[in-house]
Amino acid sequence: MSKQPKVAIIMGSDSDFPVVEGCIRILKEFGVMTTVNVSSAHRTPDKVAELAINAEDNGYEVIIAAAGKAAHLPGVLAAYTVLPVIGLPIKSSTLDGLDSLLSIVQMPLGIPVATVAINGSVNAALLAIQILGGAYPQLRTKMHEYKVKMAEEVAIKDLQLQEKLRGLQ
Amino acid sequence: MSKQPKVAIIMGSDSDFPVVEGCIRILKEFGVMTTVNVSSAHRTPDKVAELAINAEDNGYEVIIAAAGKAAHLPGVLAAYTVLPVIGLPIKSSTLDGLDSLLSIVQMPLGIPVATVAINGSVNAALLAIQILGGAYPQLRTKMHEYKVKMAEEVAIKDLQLQEKLRGLQ
Amino acid sequence: MSKQPKVAIIMGSDSDFPVVEGCIRILKEFGVMTTVNVSSAHRTPDKVAELAINAEDNGYEVIIAAAGKAAHLPGVLAAYTVLPVIGLPIKSSTLDGLDSLLSIVQMPLGIPVATVAINGSVNAALLAIQILGGAYPQLRTKMHEYKVKMAEEVAIKDLQLQEKLRGLQ
Amino acid sequence: MSKQPKVAIIMGSDSDFPVVEGCIRILKEFGVMTTVNVSSAHRTPDKVAELAINAEDNGYEVIIAAAGKAAHLPGVLAAYTVLPVIGLPIKSSTLDGLDSLLSIVQMPLGIPVATVAINGSVNAALLAIQILGGAYPQLRTKMHEYKVKMAEEVAIKDLQLQEKLRGLQ
Amino acid sequence: MSKQPKVAIIMGSDSDFPVVEGCIRILKEFGVMTTVNVSSAHRTPDKVAELAINAEDNGYEVIIAAAGKAAHLPGVLAAYTVLPVIGLPIKSSTLDGLDSLLSIVQMPLGIPVATVAINGSVNAALLAIQILGGAYPQLRTKMHEYKVKMAEEVAIKDLQLQEKLRGLQ
Amino acid sequence: MSKQPKVAIIMGSDSDFPVVEGCIRILKEFGVMTTVNVSSAHRTPDKVAELAINAEDNGYEVIIAAAGKAAHLPGVLAAYTVLPVIGLPIKSSTLDGLDSLLSIVQMPLGIPVATVAINGSVNAALLAIQILGGAYPQLRTKMHEYKVKMAEEVAIKDLQLQEKLRGLQ
Amino acid sequence: MSKQPKVAIIMGSDSDFPVVEGCIRILKEFGVMTTVNVSSAHRTPDKVAELAINAEDNGYEVIIAAAGKAAHLPGVLAAYTVLPVIGLPIKSSTLDGLDSLLSIVQMPLGIPVATVAINGSVNAALLAIQILGGAYPQLRTKMHEYKVKMAEEVAIKDLQLQEKLRGLQ
Amino acid sequence: MSKQPKVAIIMGSDSDFPVVEGCIRILKEFGVMTTVNVSSAHRTPDKVAELAINAEDNGYEVIIAAAGKAAHLPGVLAAYTVLPVIGLPIKSSTLDGLDSLLSIVQMPLGIPVATVAINGSVNAALLAIQILGGAYPQLRTKMHEYKVKMAEEVAIKDLQLQEKLRGLQ
Repeated sequence: MSKQPKVAIIMGSDSDFPVVEGCIRILKEFGVMTTVNVSSAHRTPDKVAELAINAEDNGYEVIIAAAGKAAHLPGVLAAYTVLPVIGLPIKSSTLDGLDSLLSIVQMPLGIPVATVAINGSVNAALLAIQILGGAYPQLRTKMHEYKVKMAEEVAIKDLQLQEKLRGLQ
Repeated sequence: MSKQPKVAIIMGSDSDFPVVEGCIRILKEFGVMTTVNVSSAHRTPDKVAELAINAEDNGYEVIIAAAGKAAHLPGVLAAYTVLPVIGLPIKSSTLDGLDSLLSIVQMPLGIPVATVAINGSVNAALLAIQILGGAYPQLRTKMHEYKVKMAEEVAIKDLQLQEKLRGLQ
Repeated sequence: MSKQPKVAIIMGSDSDFPVVEGCIRILKEFGVMTTVNVSSAHRTPDKVAELAINAEDNGYEVIIAAAGKAAHLPGVLAAYTVLPVIGLPIKSSTLDGLDSLLSIVQMPLGIPVATVAINGSVNAALLAIQILGGAYPQLRTKMHEYKVKMAEEVAIKDLQLQEKLRGLQ
Repeated sequence: MSKQPKVAIIMGSDSDFPVVEGCIRILKEFGVMTTVNVSSAHRTPDKVAELAINAEDNGYEVIIAAAGKAAHLPGVLAAYTVLPVIGLPIKSSTLDGLDSLLSIVQMPLGIPVATVAINGSVNAALLAIQILGGAYPQLRTKMHEYKVKMAEEVAIKDLQLQEKLRGLQ
Repeated sequence: MSKQPKVAIIMGSDSDFPVVEGCIRILKEFGVMTTVNVSSAHRTPDKVAELAINAEDNGYEVIIAAAGKAAHLPGVLAAYTVLPVIGLPIKSSTLDGLDSLLSIVQMPLGIPVATVAINGSVNAALLAIQILGGAYPQLRTKMHEYKVKMAEEVAIKDLQLQEKLRGLQ
Repeated sequence: MSKQPKVAIIMGSDSDFPVVEGCIRILKEFGVMTTVNVSSAHRTPDKVAELAINAEDNGYEVIIAAAGKAAHLPGVLAAYTVLPVIGLPIKSSTLDGLDSLLSIVQMPLGIPVATVAINGSVNAALLAIQILGGAYPQLRTKMHEYKVKMAEEVAIKDLQLQEKLRGLQ
Repeated sequence: MSKQPKVAIIMGSDSDFPVVEGCIRILKEFGVMTTVNVSSAHRTPDKVAELAINAEDNGYEVIIAAAGKAAHLPGVLAAYTVLPVIGLPIKSSTLDGLDSLLSIVQMPLGIPVATVAINGSVNAALLAIQILGGAYPQLRTKMHEYKVKMAEEVAIKDLQLQEKLRGLQ
Repeated sequence: MSKQPKVAIIMGSDSDFPVVEGCIRILKEFGVMTTVNVSSAHRTPDKVAELAINAEDNGYEVIIAAAGKAAHLPGVLAAYTVLPVIGLPIKSSTLDGLDSLLSIVQMPLGIPVATVAINGSVNAALLAIQILGGAYPQLRTKMHEYKVKMAEEVAIKDLQLQEKLRGLQ
């Protein structure tokens, strides 16, 4: 029986859940096993280190880390693992997410974090699936289908717009 | 015989080469086959589309795209492929790379780009290797070794600093 | 019978419609034929390329492209056409439109996009009309009238303010 | 005999000339008549108003205005004419051109300025040519050729890179 | 009979009135004659020029100009007068007032605008009064009293806070 | 005998002198008595308070304060005087002057600082002269002449450009 | 009997109280004597100077200063005392707190302010307690307990999330 | 014999040394025992954790952490200790230190970092000394002397300026 893809989602705070939800949904849609944890690089650093150190042995292949403000979580996880870490910057109540973005993306030489857009929860999941596609060809196939579906949805939106515009005349 | 990992590096302009060089060097060090091309999302859009559309069939598993200013190259490549695309924002002569970074990382829903730091050329390569690690366990092993080596280098720098400080007293 | 001016408006997402509406209204007021489409540089890149490639043959003379976040749509359209492309940056939920603006205006050498203000929908239309004025003198005349009307409206606002201020005393 | 296309370039300061030079060169290459003037929205406001008011009668069809810092020149010219005004933000000694860009692109409702990238001098010229293309089909033809040439140059750069890379091995 | 101080307030749009109101109120409190006009640097440039050119002859001694986005009004007024011009940047719907601020404060060499905080309407009035204080000693006296009153208000706020804190214990 | 206008220039650090020099020169040109002092809001707060408190009695009519980084000097001076205080933000080695600008211009309600451009030393002097113009009509006359001279200089630059362009053909 | 730790909180405006409240609560929880005052660097500069000058003699060991916009309060206090001053930048109605942050953190050489996050009220208190920990070992003990409690709270949030996720399946 | 104050300086990279040098010098001047180490939150996370966990037992009372880009070092140290951690943001080759600053100062609730200015190395040392002053009264005395000396230096700079200005006349 073939190995199943597995992704760990780690949030710096449970208040990030409303954003992270889209990420969980997409991974489920693609049939990717997903665990979700609240763990803070600052309040529970040992827990975060442990999660990252054991991630590979625990069968994870990608880690998605969501965090806001001085968002150290993705970088700290990346420090302890050779798995790809996807950083999801969360917009907080000040600075419109710019602090989260820069704290995640501007990683110094040696430890990359694969950063997606501020609050780009769905994209974090899709990137994880694209990464997993290397070892799980079925995910690559599904991603092709997903892209076709997205294009169709845009086409439908376009048709709906044409109707709406005719209605406006 | 096992398949060999292959990465496509695409630069929006040949002036990006001095930054991209570090990326090529690291991939070579890890034994990853790498092709490098100059191709512009704006001046040669068909070429870019073709590269992305054929990348999977041509045996590529990761694409690294370097671009500056209104940096559309990574996003346009990502539009045409299901392979993971790593975006490398290049600092240009104005705005200190902020335009490149935002043009690459803030991708709208559906098409992620795995963004690294501005001019973060080595990290782009390391991220590619981490991604390839899923299907190529030998890269995961090498990455573990690389992390050990980096830690040792920091330890050596620390020792050198101690000597220097003793000298200053 | 003389040729009629025609403008293509393309939005990256149907959620841009409330902003784009002002643009459509102005073009209609000036008697410019306008088509409006939803088409995404990332989710439907072929459609976007096709629209741009055929725009000239289909009788369009100006393209207006509205997009948010890492807004590649105007630049991608401009890559495929010699028609002037007007970029309309849409403010999205993070970064207050700065990402959209920089992604559109900071185009690299060779492919310009005529950028207007963030959410500057009416100005996108007026710019299109000023551009069309070169071949359609009646639009130039109407634009002179429009400017007179705008000045009159400011004068009326000023009179209303004077009354209001007298009321306040 | 057919009318010849004519563009007015106006710089806020003679120190902008090194940037504006690229713009002049391109317009000459395309055979567009070009006049260049130093005139300041703040130090010679009457001259600027006069230039803009008479531009249409003087046979100009596009105005390109280059200015830095609190760059009011393009907006002030646009206030006085129905011709399309292209704004070229010049990077000055502080704030990396962000002040120039925002002062030009964020025009309020009613008076658009077609803004190009900071120091995007060549693109200002190319945009002028695309705008003129509506009334001067020969410019549209030349622009098609220019795009082909740009694509070829990218292809040549790519070939040179391949040689260089072979040399490095 | 001694000359009476007179200030002209000019707003780029009547939508700036809610902000400008605080400015009018303070000037009235200090007994400064004030006229308020809506006049746009872009939609009514001649009117703006005329206002500025005649301001001195019409007995004005300070001009306060409120404008948002690419806020050219204060700079354009300053171009046409030797009176001090106070620029009041108005926060608009995008970029949080940064565009207005930079468009007003970053004036190039030769034509200063005395800029106050974004939406700093009361401070614009107080600055006008401080400027007028040079020729109208009674305003200087009143300003001394105003400062004393402000200090007293802070002291009262402090006392109220002490009571509140006692209540919380 | 008529009173002579007098301006106090205060710099937060002697390293600001190269920027402030232009300011001193202009004031001298206009015949304004000027004293220049180094005094720091943070290192010599009592001295700064004393300067501001006594400024009026010492016959000063305007204070110009130059400071960089978290530039508190203009605001602290303004706290202690009813004279108009002109704030001159100095660009320092990080953040390109944005910190200086915001620390000076964003003054809270009650205490305005008349802010000029980053490093806008000449404009600080000209603004002081415009302010003094209210009580010293001869300065208003000189300012009219200065504006004429500036306009002539722009005209000369324009003529020189025309010659240069003829030379290039 | 041992000396008791004492902290002075000073707010630039009583409108900062809702933010500062969290700071007061934490200090009370840790048994630190706290006084809270409204005092403005600009409207009551003498009061602020006096507070700072006497703070040491009055038995204070740390000062926390909360202020928004061009936030000079922490720096001005720091100018007059050798006690550590913690700066708490308050987000105001424009610029999202960036002005407050830069005005507080970018202090020039010689006078540091220990700056915490924008609206980071609880952290200001915790930092004060960490500073006091040097002389008050009991606070160090309590801080160890506080960290344990924070880690436990994260663990509980994680458990609650696991339940929630099971509920979603 | 009384305990001696001890400070740990930790740099994320040895390239930070030129900036950190000023910090070391000041601490030495004040007679504070100082150790300096290179240790990276990302490349040697265990070493960093160990340093922080043992800092208190090893007799340290303050930690100063210097780091650039996505600067996680101060926050990670703060996660593992109850000692006050001073964050020193280092300006790197892109974004002018803004990324370092935001990554350090915007710490989420629970774990403060006492942040000083970008490259504010001397201030980091002075802040450490002010913090140590609570338990080491001799440092408080020295800091009073240091402030007097700083004020005298400003006075001397002012005298030198007066001479220089006399020379210029």
